Formats: sequence, C-alpha cells, structure tokens
Amino acid sequence: MAHRFISEIEAGETINDIYMVREPILRSTTRGDLYIAMFLSDRTGRLNGRMWQATEAVYKALPKPGFVHIDGRSELYQNNLQIVINNVGVIDADKVDLETFLSRTDKDIGRMFEQIKSTLDGIKNPQLKALVAEFLADAELMDKFRNAPAATSLHHNCLGGLLEHTHNMLRVACAILPLYPNVQGDLVLAGVFLHDIGKTEELSYDMAFSYTDSGQLMGHIAQSLLMIQRRADALAARGTPIDKEIFDALGHIILSHHGEYKFGSPKLPATPEAFMVYYIDDLDAKVNQVTSAIENEPGDSNWTGWKNALQTRLYRKRIE
Amino acid sequence: MAHRFISEIEAGETINDIYMVREPILRSTTRGDLYIAMFLSDRTGRLNGRMWQATEAVYKALPKPGFVHIDGRSELYQNNLQIVINNVGVIDADKVDLETFLSRTDKDIGRMFEQIKSTLDGIKNPQLKALVAEFLADAELMDKFRNAPAATSLHHNCLGGLLEHTHNMLRVACAILPLYPNVQGDLVLAGVFLHDIGKTEELSYDMAFSYTDSGQLMGHIAQSLLMIQRRADALAARGTPIDKEIFDALGHIILSHHGEYKFGSPKLPATPEAFMVYYIDDLDAKVNQVTSAIENEPGDSNWTGWKNALQTRLYRKRIE
Amino acid sequence: MAHRFISEIEAGETINDIYMVREPILRSTTRGDLYIAMFLSDRTGRLNGRMWQATEAVYKALPKPGFVHIDGRSELYQNNLQIVINNVGVIDADKVDLETFLSRTDKDIGRMFEQIKSTLDGIKNPQLKALVAEFLADAELMDKFRNAPAATSLHHNCLGGLLEHTHNMLRVACAILPLYPNVQGDLVLAGVFLHDIGKTEELSYDMAFSYTDSGQLMGHIAQSLLMIQRRADALAARGTPIDKEIFDALGHIILSHHGEYKFGSPKLPATPEAFMVYYIDDLDAKVNQVTSAIENEPGDSNWTGWKNALQTRLYRKRIE
Amino acid sequence: MAHRFISEIEAGETINDIYMVREPILRSTTRGDLYIAMFLSDRTGRLNGRMWQATEAVYKALPKPGFVHIDGRSELYQNNLQIVINNVGVIDADKVDLETFLSRTDKDIGRMFEQIKSTLDGIKNPQLKALVAEFLADAELMDKFRNAPAATSLHHNCLGGLLEHTHNMLRVACAILPLYPNVQGDLVLAGVFLHDIGKTEELSYDMAFSYTDSGQLMGHIAQSLLMIQRRADALAARGTPIDKEIFDALGHIILSHHGEYKFGSPKLPATPEAFMVYYIDDLDAKVNQVTSAIENEPGDSNWTGWKNALQTRLYRKRIE
Amino acid sequence: MAHRFISEIEAGETINDIYMVREPILRSTTRGDLYIAMFLSDRTGRLNGRMWQATEAVYKALPKPGFVHIDGRSELYQNNLQIVINNVGVIDADKVDLETFLSRTDKDIGRMFEQIKSTLDGIKNPQLKALVAEFLADAELMDKFRNAPAATSLHHNCLGGLLEHTHNMLRVACAILPLYPNVQGDLVLAGVFLHDIGKTEELSYDMAFSYTDSGQLMGHIAQSLLMIQRRADALAARGTPIDKEIFDALGHIILSHHGEYKFGSPKLPATPEAFMVYYIDDLDAKVNQVTSAIENEPGDSNWTGWKNALQTRLYRKRIE
Amino acid sequence: MAHRFISEIEAGETINDIYMVREPILRSTTRGDLYIAMFLSDRTGRLNGRMWQATEAVYKALPKPGFVHIDGRSELYQNNLQIVINNVGVIDADKVDLETFLSRTDKDIGRMFEQIKSTLDGIKNPQLKALVAEFLADAELMDKFRNAPAATSLHHNCLGGLLEHTHNMLRVACAILPLYPNVQGDLVLAGVFLHDIGKTEELSYDMAFSYTDSGQLMGHIAQSLLMIQRRADALAARGTPIDKEIFDALGHIILSHHGEYKFGSPKLPATPEAFMVYYIDDLDAKVNQVTSAIENEPGDSNWTGWKNALQTRLYRKRIE
Repeated sequence: MAHRFISEIEAGETINDIYMVREPILRSTTRGDLYIAMFLSDRTGRLNGRMWQATEAVYKALPKPGFVHIDGRSELYQNNLQIVINNVGVIDADKVDLETFLSRTDKDIGRMFEQIKSTLDGIKNPQLKALVAEFLADAELMDKFRNAPAATSLHHNCLGGLLEHTHNMLRVACAILPLYPNVQGDLVLAGVFLHDIGKTEELSYDMAFSYTDSGQLMGHIAQSLLMIQRRADALAARGTPIDKEIFDALGHIILSHHGEYKFGSPKLPATPEAFMVYYIDDLDAKVNQVTSAIENEPGDSNWTGWKNALQTRLYRKRIE
Repeated sequence: MAHRFISEIEAGETINDIYMVREPILRSTTRGDLYIAMFLSDRTGRLNGRMWQATEAVYKALPKPGFVHIDGRSELYQNNLQIVINNVGVIDADKVDLETFLSRTDKDIGRMFEQIKSTLDGIKNPQLKALVAEFLADAELMDKFRNAPAATSLHHNCLGGLLEHTHNMLRVACAILPLYPNVQGDLVLAGVFLHDIGKTEELSYDMAFSYTDSGQLMGHIAQSLLMIQRRADALAARGTPIDKEIFDALGHIILSHHGEYKFGSPKLPATPEAFMVYYIDDLDAKVNQVTSAIENEPGDSNWTGWKNALQTRLYRKRIE
Repeated sequence: MAHRFISEIEAGETINDIYMVREPILRSTTRGDLYIAMFLSDRTGRLNGRMWQATEAVYKALPKPGFVHIDGRSELYQNNLQIVINNVGVIDADKVDLETFLSRTDKDIGRMFEQIKSTLDGIKNPQLKALVAEFLADAELMDKFRNAPAATSLHHNCLGGLLEHTHNMLRVACAILPLYPNVQGDLVLAGVFLHDIGKTEELSYDMAFSYTDSGQLMGHIAQSLLMIQRRADALAARGTPIDKEIFDALGHIILSHHGEYKFGSPKLPATPEAFMVYYIDDLDAKVNQVTSAIENEPGDSNWTGWKNALQTRLYRKRIE
Repeated sequence: MAHRFISEIEAGETINDIYMVREPILRSTTRGDLYIAMFLSDRTGRLNGRMWQATEAVYKALPKPGFVHIDGRSELYQNNLQIVINNVGVIDADKVDLETFLSRTDKDIGRMFEQIKSTLDGIKNPQLKALVAEFLADAELMDKFRNAPAATSLHHNCLGGLLEHTHNMLRVACAILPLYPNVQGDLVLAGVFLHDIGKTEELSYDMAFSYTDSGQLMGHIAQSLLMIQRRADALAARGTPIDKEIFDALGHIILSHHGEYKFGSPKLPATPEAFMVYYIDDLDAKVNQVTSAIENEPGDSNWTGWKNALQTRLYRKRIE
Repeated sequence: MAHRFISEIEAGETINDIYMVREPILRSTTRGDLYIAMFLSDRTGRLNGRMWQATEAVYKALPKPGFVHIDGRSELYQNNLQIVINNVGVIDADKVDLETFLSRTDKDIGRMFEQIKSTLDGIKNPQLKALVAEFLADAELMDKFRNAPAATSLHHNCLGGLLEHTHNMLRVACAILPLYPNVQGDLVLAGVFLHDIGKTEELSYDMAFSYTDSGQLMGHIAQSLLMIQRRADALAARGTPIDKEIFDALGHIILSHHGEYKFGSPKLPATPEAFMVYYIDDLDAKVNQVTSAIENEPGDSNWTGWKNALQTRLYRKRIE
Repeated sequence: MAHRFISEIEAGETINDIYMVREPILRSTTRGDLYIAMFLSDRTGRLNGRMWQATEAVYKALPKPGFVHIDGRSELYQNNLQIVINNVGVIDADKVDLETFLSRTDKDIGRMFEQIKSTLDGIKNPQLKALVAEFLADAELMDKFRNAPAATSLHHNCLGGLLEHTHNMLRVACAILPLYPNVQGDLVLAGVFLHDIGKTEELSYDMAFSYTDSGQLMGHIAQSLLMIQRRADALAARGTPIDKEIFDALGHIILSHHGEYKFGSPKLPATPEAFMVYYIDDLDAKVNQVTSAIENEPGDSNWTGWKNALQTRLYRKRIE
C-alpha cells in the first residue's frame, strides 16, 4: 500500500500508516490522565501526534527515535493539523523503506558511481592511482559513500547527495582541466574524490541527517585526512609507500578546500590544484543550493524567502 | 636592431637604445653642477639613469613620461646597476613598438576575439543577442577591449589581458553550462562578455598600467553598467528596446560579480547566473594569478615569496 | 465616517469599516467546513481576521493584497484580539484614502518641496544647475520623489519620508557649508538632492513599503547613477553636455555615500564633498531613527527595547 | 634674523641657525675616528646631520632631544641633502620660539577661545553650566586646552588643533541643533566641549607631538571621564552636586563618541545626543583631514598618495 | 513552611505560597469581564498566572514588580502549566527570603571573603596595599561586593557570583604567579580584586539580575575606574597619595581586561600584568560557563543545545 | 677559542672565526672583476660580507646555506658595518656548535624533560597513559621534541623552546586543575603534552628557524593529529586499541587549541578540557612573548617598539 505522505494529509483523514517518531513525552492532563505527545514525520514533513489515555508502558515501548505504525485520525487543532492516535505499534527499522523517511537523490546512484570509477581510472600517477584504488576497494566505505548526504542542510542534503556532489565536481574538473594546462590533473581528480570523504564519518543519516559525536568533535576535514593517512599507511605496509610530497600535496587540498579560515579550513590554498578544488566545490555547492531553493520554494512569488547563508533572497523569474 | 631589454643589461655595456623615461628630476651636486636623475624602463624592468653635466633645457625637453633614445653606458653603483647617459633624444610615442614597453598576452588576440564572437553568436535570446551585437559593432570600443589589461597587477596584467581573461571565462562557461541545465546560458554568456567591459574605461594602458580618474572615482562595475544602459537606450531609440527584466537580470550579474561587499560589489549574487559568473571569474583570475606567480618567480626555491592578496606563499614543486 | 484604527479596536466592538487584506488562506475545519483566515491592517497595526462558513467563491474574489469592507465583530481568542467577519466586500484601491493605510510624514510636503527647489536654485555651476533642473522638470518623477519613503523600516519609513530626509539634509548642508570653505557647495547640494533619487525605483509603496524586483536586483545606488546618466545624455542630445569630470565627481558621491563597502557602497569616499554627503546622510538618518524609536516605544521604561541595527537599547530619560 | 627652514635649504648653503636635534649617535669610522650622526629638524621637515672629528664630550653634552645652534654647511650625499656640522652649541628650550619647530593653527586662538566661552554661556541647565564653568575656571588646564594638538597625525595635528577642532564642532552643533528639536542642546554643547578634554593629558607636545605614558596606558576617553568626575566631586564638596543622571548622560557621550568598539569606544551611542556628538566629531575630523591632505600634498597630480586611514587616494581636481 | 518551587509544580496542585509577580496586565474578556494576566516566578522558573473576575482595585494594588501571596490552583492550558489565582495579597519585599527568588552561589560567602582579604594582605607595595584597604574598609561597598552577581547570564550569574569569580581568580593568580617571576604580583592581585568592582554599580540584583541605568550608560569598566580614582583621591586628601604611575598601571589593567576592542575594552593589554589578568578572567569565566551549561542542561544527550556566545554545542560525555 | 659574536664586532677588527653563510651571489664590478656578496650570521645577528677578487670556483664551493671559516676584517661602509673577506673555507656542519648560531633556552632541557615525564606519569586513564607512553618511548621523536623551537618568532623561538613551553604549560595545568574539579585532568595533561607535538615536523631548525615544506602545506595542528592516529593505530595493532571516544576527545583538544577559526583552528573548543588547554597555551605564549620583548628591547625607553601581533607597544616601567 502506498505511503500517505505527511505533506498530503488533510484534516479529517483516517490514518493507518508507518511514520518516524521523535521526542515522545509522557504528560498528565489537569484531570490527572496520562497522554503522550510526539512528533510524527516522513521525508515530506512533520506533524504533532497526541495519544490520549496513554499508559507508562506504551510510552516506555516507544523508540526515541524510531518507527511506529499509527492507527488514528488527522484533525485541526488551533489551526494546526495534528494526528490523534488510537493505537501505536513499534516497527523494526529494518522493515521500513528508508527512502520514505529520508529524501534521496533523483540521479542514478549506480551509474554515477561507475562514472566516478571510470574518471578516476584516468589518473596516471601510480601512487595517487594506488591510493584512490585503496578507497575504491573498501566495499563498506564505498557503500557509505554512495548513500551519505553531502550536508545536513543547504546543498545536496539527501541520501546519495555526497555521491552526486562528488560526481558533478569530477565532471566539472574534467571539463575545465584542458583549459588550465599548468594545473596537475591527477591531483585535482584525487582531491575532488577525497575532499569530503570524511563526511561518511561526520554525518549520521540512518534516521535523519545529523552529526555524529566524532563529526562534531573533529569535523570532516580532519576525518578525511586521517582516512587518507590510514590508507597510505596500509599501502606502505604492503611495500608501496606514498611519497611524503604526494601525501602532503593531497592533504593540503583537503585541509584548504573551504578556502577561508572562517569556514573551518586550517590552511589557505597554496597550490593551483588546491585553488581549483576549492572553486569547483564552492561553485557546485552554491549552484545546487540556489537552484534547489528556487525550485522547492512553494508559491509563485518572484523571490524566495531570505536565505541566511547567502545573505539575500533569490530571484526566481526566468528570462527564457 | 633588436631592443636590448633592461633585464638583460649587465655592468659595462655600451647602451644605444630606446627606453621609457619616468619621473625625471633636475638636481645640483654639492659643487653646484646640474644633473638629471630619471627612471629608464621597458616591459622587463627598470633602472636608474643619471645624466651628468645636464642643462635645464635638456630637462625641460624630456617627456614626463614618454620615450627617449639613450646613448650611454651601464655601470654598478653601490651594487646597483645604473645607466650613465651621454646623450638623450626624445622619441615620439607613435614611433615605438608599445609591446617592447608593456607586456602583451602570448595568446593570439585576433583568434581569441574571433572565438569570442563565435561563442556569443550562440546566444538565442533576441534581446541579449541584440545588446551583445551593439557592443561588438562598436569598433573603437572593441579595439580597446582587445588591448586592455584585466588588472594593473595580480592577474592578466598585460596588454590583451582583459580579452584573454574574458575568452577563457567563456570557454569555461561553455564547458560547464551543460552540467547545470537550470542555469540560463544566454545570461551567463552575455554576463561573462560584459562583466569587466568597464575596464576599458577604468584602466589606462598607453604608457603603463594604471587607473584613469574616472576609473578611480567610479570603478569598472559602475562603468560597465552605465555602458550597458547607454547601448540599451540606443537600441530602444531604434525601436528595439530591452525588457526591463532582462536589463535588470544582466545588470545584477555585473553588480554582484565580485561576490562580496568587501570586494566592491554593491549587491550580493541572487540568481544562479550571477553565482556562476562570480565563480568562473574568481576561478580564472586566481588560477592565472597563482600559476603566473609560480612561473615568474626567479630561483628554484620550492616556495614563492609571500603573496599578500592570497595571504600565503605558493608551493612550486610538482609531483608529475 | 471616521476610520476605526486597528490600534484602537477593543474586544467586543462591532466592526464596519475598510481595511487592507493580506495573505488570505482558505482552510477547512475538522468538521470539513471551509473558512478563510487573513490579515486585516491599516497604518496603525494588524489583526487576524476569520470568516467562518466561507465559500471558495468568496475566497477567489478577495484581492491578494488589496482593500475590503468588513462587517463583523472583534473578540478575544486565546488572549489575542481577532476580527470575526460576517460579510466582506472588495473595494477598489482608487476609492480608499491611502494615508489611512500607510503612514505619511507630518511635515508639509508642498512646502518642503518648494524649499528644496529654492535651495537648489542657489547652485551656481551651470552644468550642475542644468542637470538638477532636468530632474525637477520631470513631473512624474518629482511626484514619486514627493511620496516615496526613505526606507522600508528604521528611518523616515513613511510616505514623503524620502522628501523629508532630503529636505532636512539640504538644510544641514546649507547650515554647515559656510564653516568648510574648501568644500565645493554646488557638488554637495546636487549630491544631497540626488543621493537617494533611485529609491523612487527601488521601493514600492502603493500598498505597503517593500522592494521592487528592480530594486532588489540593482539597488538604489546603481539606479540613482543610471538615472543621472540618462538625464545627462538627454542634455547632451540637446547640445548642452555635462563634462565628464563633473559627471564623475557627482557619480562618485552617489556611489560612495554609504561610506563603507559593507553597507553597499562600491567606492569609498575620496573627495571632501563625498565625505560631507556621507556624514550628513548618516547623521540625519540615525538621529531620526533614534528619536523616532524613543517617541514611538509604548510604556514609560527608561529604555527602549533592543535595536539590532544599532546594537544597543536607547535611553529615553531627559535631563531637561 | 629669520629662521632658515629645513624645507627651503638647498645644497651648498652655509648654515648658521637653531634646529631641534633628535637621536644623536656617536660612531667611529673605519679609521677609528669618532663622529656624530643626528637628525636636525624644524616644523617643515628633517635632515641628517654629520659632525666629523667629534669627541665623546661633545656627544654627551647634546640634548636627546632638544635644541642646538648649528654652524655648518649643506651638501648632497648620495642624492640626499645632509648638513655637515662644524660647531654645535646647546640652546635652552626656553629661548626658542616653539612655533618654529611645531606647526600651529593659523586661526586666532584667543578669538576662538572667546567664542567657545560665549557659546557655552548659552547652556541653560544649571548643573551642566556649573560643571562647564569649573573647567573654564581652571586656568592651567585651559592653557593646555588652547595649545594641545587634536591628534599626533591625521587631523588638526598642530598646536591649537584641539581648540580649533572643538571650536568648529561647537559651530556645527549650533548650526544644526535648531533642525533637531528633540535633541537636548545643553548636553550636546557640554559633550562637544569636553569630549576630547583628556587629550591635554594624553598627548605630549612640548618638543614634538607624541603620547604621554599615561595617555598610552589609559587613553583620552578614560582620562576625559576621570577629569569630569574630579570636577563633579569638587562641586559636590562645595555643596552643589551634579545629579547622577546628568553625570551619566554626559559620561555616556564621552565613552561612546568614537561610535564603534573598534575605534576604542567601550560603549556604543545610546542617546540622540551621543549620536550627534559622534557624527559632528567624525565629520569635522574627516573633512579637516581630507582638505588638509589635498592642500599639503606637493605636486600637481589629480590624486594624492594612498591614505591608509581612509583606504583610498584623494581626488584633488575641483570643478569650480 | 517550605516554599513550593515553580520547577516542581505539577498540574492539579493547590497553590498557597509567595511568588515574585512581574508585568501584570488588566484585560477584558469577550464578555467584558476583567481579568489579570501576570508572570509568577521564583529562582527555579516562571509560570503564567490568571486571575479571573478581577477588579481594577486589585490590579492597582499589585507591585510591578514585587512579591505576592497566591491562593490558587495549577492547571494545564494548551499543554502549558498555568496558575489560576483565587486570591492575591501583596507581600513586603523585606519579609521574603531573597534567595528563594534569586539563585545564590553554593560556596560559603563569608569564607571566600575572608580568604580574599587574606590573599590581598600579601600585597607588599604600600600604595597598592593602601588602595586595596580603602576598598575593604568600605562596609557598604563590600556588602554589595559579597552579594552581586558576576553577570546577568552566561557565567557566575547568581547572588555572590562576583565574589566567587573574584575569589577563584585570586586562587588561580596565586597558583601561577610563582611560574612567571617577571610578572609583578602585587599589580596582578590588586587588578584581579578590582577588575569587576564596578559591577556592584552596573548590575541590579534586588529583584532579578539586570542592568542599572548607570550600568547601561557607562559600563562596569568605566565605573570601576571611577571608583578607584575616588578612593585614590580620598587617600591623597588624607596625605597618602597614589603615584600617578601606579594609578595608571592599575587603571590600564581595568581598561584592557576584556582583551579586545570588540568586547568593550578601550585599550589593549600592554603590560604583562594586564595580559595575565585578562587570561585569568577569561579562563575562569569560560570554564565556569561551560561546566555550568553541561551540568544544568536537562536530559542525557551527549551534547548541550547550541551556545551562541561560544558558537558551538558542548560535549558532555566524560571519559573518566 | 671563544667565538666573536656578530653583535659585538666593531669597525676595524681582524676577523678569524666561523659564521653561517647565506645567499652568496657572484657579481662583477664595473671594471669586470668578480666579487662575492653574502650574509654572515650567528645567533646574535647578521652582517654583509664582501670578498673582492673572487673566482667562480670559490663561489661554487660555498654552501648555500652552511658554515664557513672567515679570514678578514670589519669596516664601516656607508655607516653600515661589513666584513671584507680575504680567505674563506668551508666548514662541515657537524663540526660547529649549533648553539653559537641558533639561540637555545636557558632552562635545563634534561631536567624539564624529566619533570614532564614525571607529571605525565600521574595520568590515570590507562588508554591515555598508554598513548602518552608510546610518544615518550619514541627516542628519535623525543630528541626532536627536546630541541625544537615553539615558533619561528614571537614566543619561545629558541632551541628547546617547544619543550620549555610545554613544560611550563604542564606546571600551570597542575597548579590550577585542583581549582576546577569538573575538568578531566588526564585529558588536559595529555592534551598539553601533545598539543604542539606536530611542530617537530612543521618547523626546521638545523640552520635557522623556518618551516618545512610539509609544515607549510599541512600545519602542526593537522600534523599533531596524524601523529596521534599513527600511535593509536600502532597500539591497536598490538592489541590495546584506544577507544574512539577517547581518541576524538583528545583530537578535539588538538584541533581547537588555537581557540578561533582565524588562528587556524578548524574546530572551536567544545569541552571544558579544550577550553583549558586553549587558555593555558595562550597565557603562557603571550606572557613569554611580552616579557621577552620587554627584556630584549635595547635602550631605556619606557615603551618597546610597536608589536604588530599585539597591536600595541609594551610598557616597560616597573612599580616594584
């Protein structure tokens, strides 16, 4: 049966479907009766849920957060839609289709990943090639790489977003590298591939898009660098070490790719390759962010709402 | 006869050639004799010149600045090379080959200009096409556009630099526009072509690269915008007006293409096209600046000197 | 019949008057009945309106935004006053007195405009005089100039606010110019008159104070400059061109009058006249903003609320 | 006999005049002979002085800094003018005309001071009037107030500069206060008079313009405030205390008159009077700084050199 | 009878206790009946109070703010707890235990003050010793010093917080001064003792923690300095003046102890002692702020909420 | 024989000693004779050296940089001391006492290192203890740790400076940790020990204090983190892994210890331990920098020269 999406629910519907539950709280009414307040959500939005005549046992059984099957009814309360719950049953996370609850890239993940591998196959420097291969051969990591978002908000914030962002950056790199013959293409390609690889550890995306403890303490820049060193060490242990100069030049791209100290880069770009990765990253992220905001804003105003990260509203009217 | 470039002169040479003269000063020695101190330069560098036993008449005849034929000799004075002048003759600016005195792009100006015209020919929107054609049809302006530098220093600071920068930006735009189907290509192409057109009025480059009075008071962003309005007005007077929305969308690209208030943009980018022109401009300027600094720095150190505009030294060692 | 102002309505009144309607939304109650929620406002404030038992036809007929005649009753709902609407009728915008809905300067507009003309008549430089006359002769523009606000908020945000601000700045300029004999008075007077003239195009003030599309894309600084060039071009076409040096000196005042890059000036002041216009503008705007905030804040606390633009609260106690 | 000013000395003159001496150093030549190097200056400039065949006794007798009578000759050495000294005699500082060595305002100090007193006489609030009178009655302080510079550089950096700056600010205040009827004039006049009074303690100007130890440790803002408290305490001890509210409102003007934290104000303006004093101060200082720079720059270029404090060069061409 | 703390009240309780009342407002229902809305609080939190069937006489009798005895009942209204009031009686502020309403340090105030006096007794410089003694001998001031908070929020925001902060800073100073033999300990100890003494005048803490008018106009940095000058003047009047150099060195510590202009210091640290007081202050304040936030945040998440002043969330998990 | 230090050489001495040579250049005089210009230095300063009648063979033999024995004579040339070289002989770097050429801490390195080990022995957490032991057991690294400077300039810029700085920070930590019982001491001690360990790789100090290529590309923050991961991996390979939470908490201290993004920290402090290490680091570095600048400045002025990193001059007068 098709999922009834939160954004489509109207007042007065009978609800009989699975939703993600977050922050359930057990409360008592003025008469002393217990009830449970909670948020119910899927990838299209979030509503308040209320279960009257609840018991402490029901409350304790609820996942915090997790998935539940809801039997109830939608209604307007003080002009806001809420769901009044009659029965609630816990659902194992393995049993749900995660894409119902987290948005996913609309590009073909398998095809993008194949194109990335094909592009990286063009790297000629044997050490960079070996290092990249070490990452590609790590099936568990590549599985995360294919599914992680690129951010919790702003740009490419969907399952597969990191892959889509990396894939498009590689396409841009291949398109413009011929125009800059003094820029070392192998370093740029390896740098683009690995610049955000630490986001597989920085971000959590099993229930919703958020940061891991490690991600908040270290950040994906440091995590990417540590992941590269560990693979380089593994290669060295197998007798094919990476030259310090190559490791440092690649590490520098990772460390400087946010371009400015205030955006969390501990080093400023100091090589043509670092500048190129920085600009391609920013271009792809910002154009994605801007075009997504323009498309997703409801209504037909010529302008989106205020975008704090860009310090402007965005103009949506096209001349074409 | 081949010009003897300043950078190649060694101590003890007989000098018999044309140089640019700047800031000549008439002075008297402790014994009361008059002499003239001046700078002599070409595009490779600058030396002190000294003419002993000078007269006020000789001094008054000197252009300030301009070109002179020098008959003299190079010598070391306090470890610095200087030129001791026996005779000096004024040379008309029309008679000299300007490229000897101002560096010029090593790309083919005619070919780049043809490619630019060919690329702009791909614009489909009839109003943008007409507006661009109005600029291309202005022979005097296009002559300046082919010869102006893109900056007095930092990047593309050579005759033809503005053309080379615009040409390469158009090539980047054409290469990546297919990757961003929601971005309106016509606006990007017209925006790239015209984003710095005001530099033809902002910069002076007949003797050396500097700013005009108008350039310092107004800046090329405002000047570009004024130039576009004047062409739009001319088109309107001929019965083919530019829609206000199209004029504003293009004007917005001009006004916001420095990307941040602190770099002199009075507006922040608010359309996908404005973001794209901003990033392509910055990418092309910075990569040119970085690769030029790496190539032109003498010596074989792994690092260039400190680059204040980039707040770093640049790493010159290649892994390839 | 006198208008019943929003700020004076108490609970339990019968309402029978015209208000501006904004953002009407058609909703259904839990029982499935349709109702319309909307905002009702005049220049003194805004209330929620609710029309129960509404129909889709009534909803579609409502202007979004526009003016309506309301037949209903005020009541307290959850401690907030709202208006329950029995009947609603659309009113043509031409039939309402705009000043009921948008606040207007309490100064005499006609008299201020006459004083401005009289002051500008003192300009001696014939070209600046001609340029100023070109603006004063544009009846349609002068009509906008007399009615536009100076800002959407913060200072002089009322109909006629731009005129009041310009008028007071001219009075300050005339008062202090004799104290600075090296400052060129003609440039200061013309600069003050035209510094914000683009706000007639940047701002929209027929229903409420907001920005036009063109205003958001270009900004009043660029718009003022473009308006000046167009008048200068018209004068030139009539055989009395403005010298480039005069145009540039005036344009520089426009471009630099926000004083800092971060406030949207693409050029920093570089002439005594530009500094003077910048300081007079800032002084008049800030003193108006501060004294207005002190007067308009309800209650009798010694301090106003936090003013984010000034990063402080304001002290209201007087020593006199 | 008229003083021979440093700026007028040419090579080959016999020198027989009094100059300020600074930083004398005793050195030995390669042959082991002792000589003294020093700077010789007056208010028009500074030259190197060299006394060959010096003795340690002569060196020890030299003031560091102070005044000396020089018997010698000017000559060119490596294209720089220097003075070769035959005899040097120490001159008591009381015997020299300080104005030869420190520039002085060209306005009439006595007349400006009388006008200031007359203006302040218009203060009506009895407590502010008493406080201002307490300052005016302090003859020693008023003597410093009449002679101190307003700054060591940038603006009004001459003897009498503080007086001239305060005098002109009072004239501006009187000219514009009628245009702002909600601003309390008494507070503005007292605030203008006392805003920089601490500069009499912050700056040293007996030999050259510099900072006192106390000035560097505390700054004139804190020093002004302390001076006001001490006079208020004295009035209180005589039975006419200043209300805390009046003291605080005046103190607030002093503390906030630099307008921004980064310019050393520990408080931001929070009253209309504080805003007005801040703007009048900045306007008068900047217009003085700009017009002085334009007048004093030698040569006839349209532009002055780069002014770091203003982040621009200044345009000198007039349209009048 | 024990006070029933706000944070412990549940729905359905009978309320019979004293609370602080703030911002009472008299309103009328849709039926025209009068009622009073107000906030009721103690140091653990704040609830809405509603007194139905109120009269204007009852409203007028309420302190704004002050203390009242409440006879009523708690109930849930729209999921928020509120107190419905049957009777209300005004309580004199002298009759309540202030600590019930304002949180107090859990350290022993008397013991901390004794330790501070003992530490300051170690100052050897006779003038600093005399100046410190002048403060310690001011019983009224010391009473404020023992009770004032160190801030209205963020750190040590409790009665006795200023004392606790000063006490701990002195302990840190004593612990590390032996490690920095070139730093003058007497100045550091006196500087720590007096660095925030002006907070006794800047902050108001009789009803709640807020700023006095004087505090907002002047700030504790200026107030501390003025307080020191007044004591130094008193000592001088008694024949034991403080040397200007000592006064300035101590004043400099006060003026610079926020370390940066943007935090309200009008001078940057320029002595080793000023640097040390600045760092000890910041260290003690920030560690207190961070550990308090970690302890006081409810729930068991690994992270606190976002802390705007620190621009991060805080990690609460311990490794020990 | 005692080394003749550069700072003590006077004009006219016979020179017969070893100096570091840098940047030798072969030049020809106006007569065509070859000579060599070079810098000669030791830890006390630097002079120009000139070898007339040089040959290309002598030039080629010179190290660039390295050590040479000089036979020559000091003389004044244009008021600057220089050394005229008669003979020059290359000296092997192993044969020189490096401390003659690079300044060294005046503390006892062996004793400081023992105290550090003893302090770290107090760590109770077994994993942190094991990780710290892994570093202490690396003899080659500890040798670098004992000799590296803490910076190339500003503070602790001497051989052993990193050790001295770390040693003093540990002493401060031990002194104040008892005052902050909620701060986890083991993390602070380990964090202090390792916070700058990457400087052993970032800085080069065999000839002079400078940055390695790797140091410029990566920075000591990233290098420290990589070094910790490698030791943690080694421990894990031996069966005693470090918990991810402990590794992250320690890594966070490293990454955030510069306290602000603009100082190169990619993360802001988010734990009490990170705040404590940050403040102890800054306190120790700044107090060392300030007291060193005060001591080392020649002359007896009350103020040092301008210190750009501190944005102030420093006051040197003591009250004690």
